[in-house]
Formats: sequence, structure tokens, C-alpha cells
Amino acid sequence: MPDPGSTDRTRIRRLPELAITEQQKLYDVLDAGLVAHVSVLDGGLPYVVPVAYARSEARVLFHGSSGSRLFTTLADGQPTCLTVTLLDGLVLARSAFESSMNYRSVMVLGSCSVVPDSDKTDALRVITDHLLPGRWDSLRPVTRKELAATLVLSLALDECSVKIRTGGSDEPVEDHNWPVWAGVLPIRESFGEPVPMADLDPDIDVPEHVRKMSR
Amino acid sequence: MPDPGSTDRTRIRRLPELAITEQQKLYDVLDAGLVAHVSVLDGGLPYVVPVAYARSEARVLFHGSSGSRLFTTLADGQPTCLTVTLLDGLVLARSAFESSMNYRSVMVLGSCSVVPDSDKTDALRVITDHLLPGRWDSLRPVTRKELAATLVLSLALDECSVKIRTGGSDEPVEDHNWPVWAGVLPIRESFGEPVPMADLDPDIDVPEHVRKMSR
Repeated sequence: MPDPGSTDRTRIRRLPELAITEQQKLYDVLDAGLVAHVSVLDGGLPYVVPVAYARSEARVLFHGSSGSRLFTTLADGQPTCLTVTLLDGLVLARSAFESSMNYRSVMVLGSCSVVPDSDKTDALRVITDHLLPGRWDSLRPVTRKELAATLVLSLALDECSVKIRTGGSDEPVEDHNWPVWAGVLPIRESFGEPVPMADLDPDIDVPEHVRKMSR
Repeated sequence: MPDPGSTDRTRIRRLPELAITEQQKLYDVLDAGLVAHVSVLDGGLPYVVPVAYARSEARVLFHGSSGSRLFTTLADGQPTCLTVTLLDGLVLARSAFESSMNYRSVMVLGSCSVVPDSDKTDALRVITDHLLPGRWDSLRPVTRKELAATLVLSLALDECSVKIRTGGSDEPVEDHNWPVWAGVLPIRESFGEPVPMADLDPDIDVPEHVRKMSR
């Protein structure tokens, strides 16, 4: 896993300082993830909370209940960190010390701002379609009451780090003859067969935007 | 996703207060996850860092480099939060508002203590065998130098919350006739076919403890 030392502030860079390839990697990781972990300082304690999110240009959007204390705390603009980690494999070396994980991880530092009412529906569309592309257009439109109950936060991708580990181990030559299988065990996340709600009209087929996810 | 409001301190409970079934759920989630997200307060900023971990009785163990600043900060015993989230599915309702995710999530609050040298090897074994059961016994033994370079932290499961969402949506009856497919799209994490290291002796077969993971 990432060495926590590498999250030192010195390694966090402002978006414009990232090479274009790095910026693309940042976007690719954020676009591939479904859940982020966000820190919320409350009473001196740094809570870590999972949220559904989506990237929109150079921002990350996520939403919660406007009645949630931790969420309104974030809305006040206190410093936070949002991390997305995608696990790609176990790196099985001949020693515990050289064993590792392949992963892609993005860390974003900053303060959230509240998405104004005028942009809230658009933001919810981005989040919905990130989780399942094409879903939004088929849904019952959002009501005014639902919008009022929802707080959407936006975190600019100003200060970020991207860490990607791929490939095998980097073991000292003297370990190569240790008599154990060494290699990478890939990890993948996939969608299974869609399960209809119990109350679904049986005449409604699984639509293409859902079906294609499980292929 | 979990409503961040539910992480209010009032909902976090001490382990002995959890019903036995809740305690079992806590253990089951921790035993099923591979990566935790841990907060590290540094310069007033609440960093969120992914770590490999394992549960050992009523504690969570994780390790990092003894030269890492963020890691040694945690070793100093400052308050932290460790969260493990397992995604089980997208809950696709007829509205964005009622759409959700099925997940299992554990949050642990507390302060880490440093695992003493005498217990470090055992702790590394627990972490190694959590990631891949049966791996430790086949590995080249840990050296004194490797142990010195490794800091193992322990976080007691004293204050925790477990949140599990399963099943379908809970939509108002008036939405049931909206003409869109509604249901759950399951998400699963699995291991792929093992890939040998380029420098592996071709006479060494994939052992059973690796092979059984991809089945």
C-alpha cells in the first residue's frame, strides 16, 4: 500500500503543476472510482466517511443530507481531504517485506464549497450518471422538496496527489531462489446480474444502460 | 451511501455496548476488507490515507515505514479514525433521490499504539495472512533489519460503528408506476488469474493458497 509518508504536504501538488499525463491519470482514477473517503473534523476528531462522488471538470462533487451535522460541517469550508483508492492486485513477493499491493490512489486536499441551488440539479445528474452512465434521463425528475433536502458539495482539484503502483516486486537478487511462488494476484471489481425490485412491473425489461454494466 | 450525519459521536458505540450480532457484523466487515482509510492530522489538515490492515481479536493492525512522518504522527497517539467500506451494489430507484448503494462500512475511532518489537513479527503474520490466508508460512523469514524499518500500529476496537445497507429501494408508492426499470446492480470484488513474476523459476507451480483465491 502507499507509504503514508508520501502524503507529506511537499508531495501534494497544485493541479497546474502536474504534467498533462499526471493530470490525465488523476482524472482517470477519479472517473473509475465509485466511492471516496472524506475526512470531517468534528470536535477535534478526524472522522473518515465514505461518499458517492463524481468528477466534473476540475472538481469533485458529492452530496448528502442538508440535515446532517458532519455534512454541514464540511459545507462551512473547513479543511478536508478526499481520497479515492482502487485496488488492482496483491503483489506476492518471496518475503513479507517486499510484498505489496498494486493500486491507484488520488488524494485531494482543500475546502468544500456548497453548490448553489441553480446548479444543484446539474450536479446531481453528474453524480448519478457517473455511477451508472445514462441513468439520469430515465429517472423521475427531482422535486423541489428533494432538492431542498440535499446538500451538494464541491471540492476543487487544486491540491492533489496521484499514486499508481503497477507490476511485480522489486526483490533483492538473493531472494530470487527462495522456493515459493511469487507473482501478482489481480483484483477486479465487476457488476453482477441486475436484480429487479420486488414491486417492479414485470413488463419492464432491463434497459441497455443497466445491462451493459454486467457484461 | 451512508448519511454522514450518522457518524455523529452519539451513534458511535463502545464495543461492549454492541449486541453480539453487531459485534459479529463488525468483525465480518473488517475480515472481508483489504484496505482501510485512516485519518492523520498533520498541520491541522486531516489527511486520509489508504492502508492494508488486518483484525486481530478486538484490534485492527496496520503497518508502514518507520521513516514516514505521517505514520510516526499516528504512532504518537493522536486521535484517528479508520474506516473500511465494502460496496455491494447500486440501488437503482425510479428517482435520483431514492437511489442509493448497498454497502457494509465500519468506522473505528481512537488512538493508535505501537506494537512492541516482541509482537511485531506476529502482527505482520496476521496482516500477511489476512490478505492471503496461508501465505506467511511459505515466505522467507523477516530479517531484523526489515523489522526495524517497519512500524506496526494497533487500534483498539473500542469505539466503533457498523453500517450495513442491503436490499432494494424504499420508494413512495406514487413512484412505482414511473416507467423505468428499478432494481439492484450487484458489485463484487474478485481475484483474477495469478500472474507469475518475470524472474520466477518456471518449475514452481502456483500453490493452493494462491490458486484457490481466483476460483
